[in-house]
This record gives sequence, C-alpha cells and structure tokens, in this order.
Amino acid sequence: MDNELIKEMKARVFAANLALPEAGLVKLTWGNVSEINRQAGIIVIKPSGVPYASMTAEEMVVTDLEGELLEVGLKPSSDLATHVQLYKAFNTINAVVHTHSKNAVMWAQAGRNIPAYGTTHADTFYGEVPCTRQLTSTEIMTNYELETGKVIVETFNEKVIDPAAVPGVLVYGHGPFTWGATPQKAVENSIVLDEIAEMACVTEVVNQHIDPIPQYLLDKHYFRKHGAHAYYGQG
Amino acid sequence: MDNELIKEMKARVFAANLALPEAGLVKLTWGNVSEINRQAGIIVIKPSGVPYASMTAEEMVVTDLEGELLEVGLKPSSDLATHVQLYKAFNTINAVVHTHSKNAVMWAQAGRNIPAYGTTHADTFYGEVPCTRQLTSTEIMTNYELETGKVIVETFNEKVIDPAAVPGVLVYGHGPFTWGATPQKAVENSIVLDEIAEMACVTEVVNQHIDPIPQYLLDKHYFRKHGAHAYYGQG
Amino acid sequence: MDNELIKEMKARVFAANLALPEAGLVKLTWGNVSEINRQAGIIVIKPSGVPYASMTAEEMVVTDLEGELLEVGLKPSSDLATHVQLYKAFNTINAVVHTHSKNAVMWAQAGRNIPAYGTTHADTFYGEVPCTRQLTSTEIMTNYELETGKVIVETFNEKVIDPAAVPGVLVYGHGPFTWGATPQKAVENSIVLDEIAEMACVTEVVNQHIDPIPQYLLDKHYFRKHGAHAYYGQG
Amino acid sequence: MDNELIKEMKARVFAANLALPEAGLVKLTWGNVSEINRQAGIIVIKPSGVPYASMTAEEMVVTDLEGELLEVGLKPSSDLATHVQLYKAFNTINAVVHTHSKNAVMWAQAGRNIPAYGTTHADTFYGEVPCTRQLTSTEIMTNYELETGKVIVETFNEKVIDPAAVPGVLVYGHGPFTWGATPQKAVENSIVLDEIAEMACVTEVVNQHIDPIPQYLLDKHYFRKHGAHAYYGQG
Repeated sequence: MDNELIKEMKARVFAANLALPEAGLVKLTWGNVSEINRQAGIIVIKPSGVPYASMTAEEMVVTDLEGELLEVGLKPSSDLATHVQLYKAFNTINAVVHTHSKNAVMWAQAGRNIPAYGTTHADTFYGEVPCTRQLTSTEIMTNYELETGKVIVETFNEKVIDPAAVPGVLVYGHGPFTWGATPQKAVENSIVLDEIAEMACVTEVVNQHIDPIPQYLLDKHYFRKHGAHAYYGQG
Repeated sequence: MDNELIKEMKARVFAANLALPEAGLVKLTWGNVSEINRQAGIIVIKPSGVPYASMTAEEMVVTDLEGELLEVGLKPSSDLATHVQLYKAFNTINAVVHTHSKNAVMWAQAGRNIPAYGTTHADTFYGEVPCTRQLTSTEIMTNYELETGKVIVETFNEKVIDPAAVPGVLVYGHGPFTWGATPQKAVENSIVLDEIAEMACVTEVVNQHIDPIPQYLLDKHYFRKHGAHAYYGQG
Repeated sequence: MDNELIKEMKARVFAANLALPEAGLVKLTWGNVSEINRQAGIIVIKPSGVPYASMTAEEMVVTDLEGELLEVGLKPSSDLATHVQLYKAFNTINAVVHTHSKNAVMWAQAGRNIPAYGTTHADTFYGEVPCTRQLTSTEIMTNYELETGKVIVETFNEKVIDPAAVPGVLVYGHGPFTWGATPQKAVENSIVLDEIAEMACVTEVVNQHIDPIPQYLLDKHYFRKHGAHAYYGQG
Repeated sequence: MDNELIKEMKARVFAANLALPEAGLVKLTWGNVSEINRQAGIIVIKPSGVPYASMTAEEMVVTDLEGELLEVGLKPSSDLATHVQLYKAFNTINAVVHTHSKNAVMWAQAGRNIPAYGTTHADTFYGEVPCTRQLTSTEIMTNYELETGKVIVETFNEKVIDPAAVPGVLVYGHGPFTWGATPQKAVENSIVLDEIAEMACVTEVVNQHIDPIPQYLLDKHYFRKHGAHAYYGQG
C-alpha cells in the first residue's frame, strides 16, 4: 500500500468528519464520512462509535473496495457496506457522507422527496432530492447496510437520476446520504441538504399551495455553478 | 462512608450536570442529575437552584437510598424524591437526569407519547417514549415529587415497558426524565430524547399521515447498538 | 444625589442590558433594562440606540421618578415613559426589561395570551401571560410610550392579575415587557417568557386540543418557588 | 482612480461581507455585499465563490457603474448585474446585500409578501416587504442577473413603494436583497428582514386570522426611527 496516499486520505476523511459536528449536522458519535481511491483500491472511513473530541486521523479505518479491512485497528463505521454499494454503482463519486442532520431526517421520516422550491436547492441539487422506498423486512433482517445502499441505487436507477447532478438522497425512515468529488464537497452537500430541507418545510407552512420552481429556473441556477458553462466562482 | 467513592461520584454527577447547559438542554438553574451506588447505599445529586457557573463538585449533595442527607451542606434538588422512586423501581439504572429541554417539554405539555418515526429514535429508544397520565389533585398536593416518580413507574408497569430499553419518559404537563447506566449515558439519552422530540414534531408537519417505523426496523436499529448482538461501536 | 448608589445601580443596569444579547434575546441595539430606587427618587435606564458592544456602565442614563434627566449625558431609551408608568402602578417591582425576543414577539403579534401549558410556565408565571388590547389611534399618536405603559396596567387591573405573580406581559403587535425585584431577576423573567412562548406554540402544533394545566399543578409549581412555603433553592 | 477611496470602500465592503456569516445569514460562500460611490463612478463587490475564512479586503472587486472591471483580479460576484440595476434605479441607496438567509428565503420560495405584523417590522420596513413576480423563461435564459434587478425595480414601481422606506425585497423562488445608506446599514436590514420573516411565519401559526398592524402603528414606529421627527437613538 502507498503510505503517503493513505496518510493524505486519512487526513481528508478525518477533517471532513470533524466538519460535521462543527456544522451542527451531528450529535454525539453520529455520522460518518468516507473517501475512495479506485485506482489504489482503497476506501478510508470513520471508525464506529468513536467520540469526535478524541478521534485522531490515524484512527481512520482503511479497507479495500469490498470493505475488507486492510489494517489492524478500529472497527469501521457500521454503515460501511452502504458506502461500498454507492461507490460500486456511482462511479463519478469519490466521497460519501452520512448524517442524522435534523431537517433532512425529518423529511426522511416523513417519507417524502424534497421538492425544488428555490434557487438555494437548484444551486446544488438538479431536481428534487429523492426519498427511497421503505426497505422490506427481509432486506432489513439479512444485509441491512448493504440493502440500504442498494435501495439508494435502485431509487436513482428507477427515476433515472444522475447521482452527479443530485448528490444526495433520503433513506426512508432513516436519514440522508450525500456524496461528491471530495470529502469536503460531500460535507458541503450535507450542509446544503439540511438547509434546503428546513427551507422546504417552512415554505409549505407559509404557502400550502406552492409549486416547485419551473425547470428553466432550475436549469439556470444549476448550470450557473456546474458543467461546461458554469460562471460562478473563480473557475 | 467511603470518601474516595463519594469523591468520584460527585465528580461524575458534577460533570454530567455541567453537560446539560453545554448541550443546550437547560436554562438558568433548571435541570438536575443524580447517581446511585446501591451497594454503598449512596445517592449523589445536584443541589437545588444553584447557578451552573459557580457550582462546584464538592457541593453535590450526598443522601442515602431514601434521600435522607448524609452530609451537612446544601439542600438537594427539589426533584430528589422522584429520582429515589425511579431508583427503587428500576434496578438496572444508576443515574437519572431531569431537564426542561424545549422539545421534550413540548410533547410533555401536549400530553402525547413520542412515536418512533425513525432510526434516530430506534437507536436509543426501543419503542415510543411514553407520556404519563396527569397527576391527580391529591397526588400533586400531598407528595408531589414522590408521586411524580410513582406515575412514571406506573406508566412503565402498565405498558409493560422495560426501562432499560426505553431509557426516558415524559411527565404530563411537566417534562422529561431520562436514565442510564452512568450519569454520562443518562445525559446522552436526554440529548437524544430532545432531538427525536423535535424531529417527530416536524415529521408530522411534513407528512400528517406518517406512520411509525415498522417493528423490524425498530428491532434492527435498537439491537445494532444494544444487547448481545450489538455491532455498533468498538465493542 | 448619592453617587455610590447611582454607581451601583448603573453597574447592575449595565450588566442586565449586556445579558440580553448574551441570552439571544435581542439583536442590534434592541431592548432595554431599567432599575428604580423609589426612596432615592432615581431611575437608571439604558441609553437609546447605543450598540451593546461599545456601551459602558457610565453611559447608563439617570432620571427622576417622572423620567426627567438628572445628569447631562446620553438620551434615555425611547421606551422610558413605559417603564415609568409600570413603576408608578406596580409598586412591588424594582426593574423592568423590554425586548423584541423572537418567540414572545410572535405571540404579541398574534394578539394572544400565552396559556400555562406546563410547569416551566408555572415555575415563573402564576397563570397565563396576558396580551394587552391594541392601542387606539389616538393613544398611539399622542403619548405612545406612556400609553403603552397604561394599557399594560389596565390589562392587569381589568383581569385582576398581581404583577408580582405574573411578572410579564405582551403588548399587542409589539412585544414583551417583564419585571422583577432586581434587573437580573427581570432579565431571567424575559428568558423564561421567551422559552415558554416557544414551547406553547409548538405544544399547540403537537396537540391542537390541549388544555392549560389544572389550577392545582399551577399552584404547586408556582408556590414551590415563590412565597412563604417555597422550598426550591437554598432559601 | 482615488486609491484611498477604494481602500476605504474595500474595507467597508469586506467587513460587511464578513458580518453575514457572523450573523448566521449565510453558509459556505453564499451571499454578497457591494457599495457604490456615484461621484467617483465606482462599485466595490465581493468576489465570486470565495470562502469567507480566507477572503481578504484587497480581493474585493472594483468595477465602474456598469459593472465593468476596473482592476485586474478576481471575478466579481455573479449577482453583480442585479446590484448594478438596483443602483441605477434606486438613487438613494449606496450599498446592496444579497443572502440566502433561511427565513427570508422561505417567504421568497412561498412567493408571498411579508405582512407587517408588528413593530419590529415597522421599525425598519415601512409596510409589507414585497415579493417579486416570477421571472419568465425568457428573462431567466437571457440576462438572468440583470432581469432579477429589473423585476425588483418593476415591483417597487408598480406598487409605488419608496426603496428608502422599504429597504428590502424578496425575489420569487430565490431570496432576499436589502440595501441602505452604507454597507453596514444594508447588512442590518438583512438581519432584520430575516428576523421578521421568522416572526411573521410563526405569528400565522399562533393565530391564523391575524391582521397586519394598523397604519397608525406602522407610522408611529417607522417615524420614531426615520425622518425629520425621529427620536430614537442619540440623533
């Protein structure tokens, strides 16, 4: 294994995990971030149930692309199998984040897609953020975390959603997963997802008959920030 | 009395009390934490109405298992008799926390059990968090704090709920009590209870027709973290 | 004038004003606290529109019991005349606080009394927190701040409420005033008022058919903390 | 160009931009503040998509009154063309702020004007805060940011609102813009706008049949703080 590469991945995954409580997205030991390097055949992920305050970069757990441990050390996040499924199916993503952030969880518990009610949504998510179907009893009792990954992939396949354009999902009755090109980007997508979840809820309280924004406004804002014609930022 | 033991209990109880305002669960002098050592016949609890900023570990109040003072010092929390009742009835618990944390109080004031709407709930509470019946006029006017403890115990007995599996309750019109194996764990349960109370409220706003999660998902998440087959954390 | 007395009053009023932004009750230059010493014939109040960050204790404004300036210096809070009316009518109070704290304002804007939905309310307010009637056009256009004080007094007189037992009010379409035996106590009452305002709102969201707590629970909690038979705190 | 003038404008615009995350109004790189000096023919604005933590005063972007760059450096905020339109139409304003602050966005997404439900609103906004119509597909696809400015101006013209008296607006499906005599004042207006947006939402939850405050109360509070007869503050 390339020690320098692993050290850098651990540093990024560690920093991204610490960014979660700092952004108010997790309490206690909740939440986890991973990063994949497909060429090197390596995934680095947060250890399971370790307090953020005492966690160190070295403790990040190293596995192969099937989630098998490559180092002696702490146990990986119990959600590892979900991350592995997402990496297998979504080949444009390099990092995955899972949180129980309050507002995204509320929509997941309500079992609803988050409609695109405004440009804050459209700047990051090109269309509604889908909520998966409920897992079946069998799925939950056999390979729960693996099946959680599969139902996310199924959702994106059935709705023909590009995971690069909609970098997040709600798992029914559970909570959000987001992803991105880097751990930092995936964390940012978690921050945005929680923010738009809160905004969408109160938008419906303020106006019960509101419609999602029209497609051309969604297009405009999403492509201001993404793709070949993006003109937001320093390029 | 074992001075070393008492010193350690005071240190834990003090730290757990300070964790309440830090977690945003109490304002002013609200809230209290206690710990019991049944073998030594000792309960240590926060003094009544003392500001968190100036409180010291030494000021924690030491009583016997009936709540009778064992040291000259400050008066114990006025809720001591409730703690004593919980310790008598629930022999698996070693610490009790009482707060007026905003979201849990809202459900207590609404007089409703908190349904298990998601896995955040299921990770800590194995089923709905019950709300007691209202105390009667007689109960309130005679031994209010003792009767508060009794109505909690009655609630768990009548609904056949294991207090080790559902480590918290809402007292009708009042607020939450939680408990656990240690003061720190009991505080964590208060943090989770307030969080799931807020999530449950908004879940119903986002979807008025939502059902609690199915039993198998409740089982899966609760037993991922608790009992002989738990696999969350470092074990 | 007794310079030592004024210095002490200024120090208390200054500290109490600073406590408002610290408690999250005011933004920008909103809010004001005053203290009265009836024997000395002195009221000390925050100057008008001064930023909290640069304000000094010396800048607190000294007036007589009619609100006439006794020192050359800054202009007093524009709400001074309201404070004066409250001091004239409520002779058990020594300090007044006015804020635009979010949750109390929402109820004031909604024009509703805050029902006593739980013991958090009962611990500080012995019954519902009343909302005044709307001021008339004439009252607003002639002596607005004085009439604001008068409508508060009218509310307490008409409903036969003891201002010592219900240390706060909502002014219709405007916001809360609270009071107490000291500036610190009046600030604490503002903190509690905002908290119970938020709790009451969501209590109604969680249960649309909820009733206020019964009188005997109100009695129990209020008199645990107040009056000859109080047993909360260190006495 | 007057280097001293530009340095001072950059310092003010930089400080005002930093005030946005400090006040909790923006996340990530969202939000932007600009200032105009019509005599000098200069606009200074935040660069596009630069993190607040690493941004420096020197990096603020300098343009002419048409938004054409006057210095080699970073790209200006992508919302520059909106700012330019506001400066052209509203000749009493010297600074513009755009945020995606949560509560103001919720009303923008709901497509509703914010009614003046209380004096907190009236102290800063002399009447309801208007929400623009939706932009058409053509407007969005051709000169989106310029058309955003135009629809704001159209809103104020059609409703005959004085932008000096109502220093802010909601753009339908997008979010708030505010303005003022200085960057600091424009930021303060953003803070107030978000606060009254939250208050208005919950006011309607607490009382579904509430009316806006009467005109004479609006007059009283607005003119206590603004215009020739203002008596709030140190004058």
